[in-house]
Amino acid sequence: MLLLIPGPVQTRPEVRAAMAQDIAPWDRDFQRVYARIRERIVGVAGGTPGVHATLPLQGAGHFVSEAALRTFVAPGAKVLIPMNGAYAQRMARLAREAGRVVVELPLPDTRGATAADIMPALEADPAIGTVAMVFNETGSGIVNDANGIGDALRAAGKRLILDAVSAFGVLPFPLADHPECDVLVFTSGKCLEGMPGMGFAVARIDRAEACAGNAGSWSLDLSDVLANAKRSGWGSIRFTPPVQAIAAFDVALDLYDAEGGQKARLARYRANTDALYDGIVALGLKPYLAREQQGPVIVTIHQPTDPRFDLMDFVEALKRRGVLISNFYNTAAPTLRIGAIGAVTPDDIRRAVGAIGAALDDVLAKAA
Amino acid sequence: MLLLIPGPVQTRPEVRAAMAQDIAPWDRDFQRVYARIRERIVGVAGGTPGVHATLPLQGAGHFVSEAALRTFVAPGAKVLIPMNGAYAQRMARLAREAGRVVVELPLPDTRGATAADIMPALEADPAIGTVAMVFNETGSGIVNDANGIGDALRAAGKRLILDAVSAFGVLPFPLADHPECDVLVFTSGKCLEGMPGMGFAVARIDRAEACAGNAGSWSLDLSDVLANAKRSGWGSIRFTPPVQAIAAFDVALDLYDAEGGQKARLARYRANTDALYDGIVALGLKPYLAREQQGPVIVTIHQPTDPRFDLMDFVEALKRRGVLISNFYNTAAPTLRIGAIGAVTPDDIRRAVGAIGAALDDVLAKAA
Repeated sequence: MLLLIPGPVQTRPEVRAAMAQDIAPWDRDFQRVYARIRERIVGVAGGTPGVHATLPLQGAGHFVSEAALRTFVAPGAKVLIPMNGAYAQRMARLAREAGRVVVELPLPDTRGATAADIMPALEADPAIGTVAMVFNETGSGIVNDANGIGDALRAAGKRLILDAVSAFGVLPFPLADHPECDVLVFTSGKCLEGMPGMGFAVARIDRAEACAGNAGSWSLDLSDVLANAKRSGWGSIRFTPPVQAIAAFDVALDLYDAEGGQKARLARYRANTDALYDGIVALGLKPYLAREQQGPVIVTIHQPTDPRFDLMDFVEALKRRGVLISNFYNTAAPTLRIGAIGAVTPDDIRRAVGAIGAALDDVLAKAA
Repeated sequence: MLLLIPGPVQTRPEVRAAMAQDIAPWDRDFQRVYARIRERIVGVAGGTPGVHATLPLQGAGHFVSEAALRTFVAPGAKVLIPMNGAYAQRMARLAREAGRVVVELPLPDTRGATAADIMPALEADPAIGTVAMVFNETGSGIVNDANGIGDALRAAGKRLILDAVSAFGVLPFPLADHPECDVLVFTSGKCLEGMPGMGFAVARIDRAEACAGNAGSWSLDLSDVLANAKRSGWGSIRFTPPVQAIAAFDVALDLYDAEGGQKARLARYRANTDALYDGIVALGLKPYLAREQQGPVIVTIHQPTDPRFDLMDFVEALKRRGVLISNFYNTAAPTLRIGAIGAVTPDDIRRAVGAIGAALDDVLAKAA
């Protein structure tokens, strides 16, 4: 089975093999692995040791996103969120339920947000101190211009919280160039091709310390994750982690380095999305995004208008042909979501496109 | 290596093997596994289908404990916590940082709490509506009398939140007999011998619905986990889960049933702790607890008073002999923590006791 979903992704056998072992998280040997992962992540983030720290948090990406919002936006403070996708909506809900004041900036979900979108909203309300945004929006496949927005925020003296869940390791956002960024967050099971279970924040140490006391939740307090590391060592783990997923992530980082790091992985994902985009156009299907807005992580396609088409039937028919895609969509219009990330090559994608065409024939013939 | 820690535990090879696969959490085939696990857990909890529901939450046990406190204790409301161990202290911190008013009831950490301890504190402060307590305290190894306390709370019209993290599946607390219990929580990597990564709450459906709006955190809102299941189906997963740990947990439940369920597993763990308790007494070491207070999960031992003894040296020496125990302790006095749970038999324990004696000789001889 070929997994073409935007995480958890298809992994390499070496990554899966690392899952099948019992590990004591507090064991000295494992503490070295854990400390090493934290260092390596600061490197992938383009951060500065001593300035930036990796703050791991167990659980789903939503948890580490909420932890970033709770820690770096004070209770009752205002945060601006550009609303152009499903994950922006989720970020807004996370912030609102945590008692932060969300200022929503509505934008279309068919193009990436830029500084020109963001800055007028900030000028209109000087009480907004922080922008929280999604880097790569897997609702549709667009990429928001985090680097340009970050530069503009820095010039304006504002702060940035970046949800890089489905971008980290592929779309560059060098933290050393972005002191306005308090924190970015991502998870183990996306573009770094590990297994799901672990979230990570990469944060400015000075800001995480200055924000101590904000979170209103011990579980979701990134300042406390930092304090624990400073007190007990960088190999120390706060609460029981999904330790097998951490061990697998260390292997995944080895494979990332062996492939050539960010540039090589972006090139492969770009080749995957190109092959997918071309292939579905050749099948007569209509992409959701214009070519120049198409990011390298997920391709979204309008569902066929043929009234005989049914999403769940199609997903099951495609699965019988060895390819698994999402069985739900996050866009306003009905779409298909096909991931292009994970241990997947353009050849895999071309095979998948063939299966998509055949599965479409299956369901339309069956329904006829 | 034999893991003798109170979770993550030593697992069976079948459980580890289930970790080494890629799984799409939203796939229909996996939704069936997930829905089945939720049903099975209500059964293990002695709950009533339609009255009780399994509410899964990704991450560490602390997360699902905080979620239970946030969901079932309103902001600003009072909760009584009997304080007789490290995990009670953690529960108090989780509640306090979430803005709940914690009334601490100090008790010794060398005996289990009973209704006679709890009820006078409730009578003294009628504003307390809920007791939150740890069932099995892995700080020391004592077991609090959850059943007796639950009965007394029911008679008094009070509510119970039970942290059953290291008890669930072994120490019985049949939810059908305990309508005063809003929720109990546990994790995948303890007495049910799965892998870490997933927390579970088993909650009264009526109470979870009545408590909607309490949590002040979307991530940690058990009412929303329930609402999502009712809206999208019991096979639906809220946010990306550590899906391999869930698949492994399904296998672990099969092995639990095959062993004979709660009674058989308790009998094995009791045999393990008996062998451990007897063995360490025979080695001339002093257990932390009197025999009648010794629970079936973890045995805590006073560290040798010999000034040459060093905990970390000892743990490493024991590891060289194939046995891994905790390298920290949670009691007021310096102790050793040795777990007796997981895929471990009394024969394993007897071999471990031999290794403990030899490792003690190693470190004292080396230090001499």
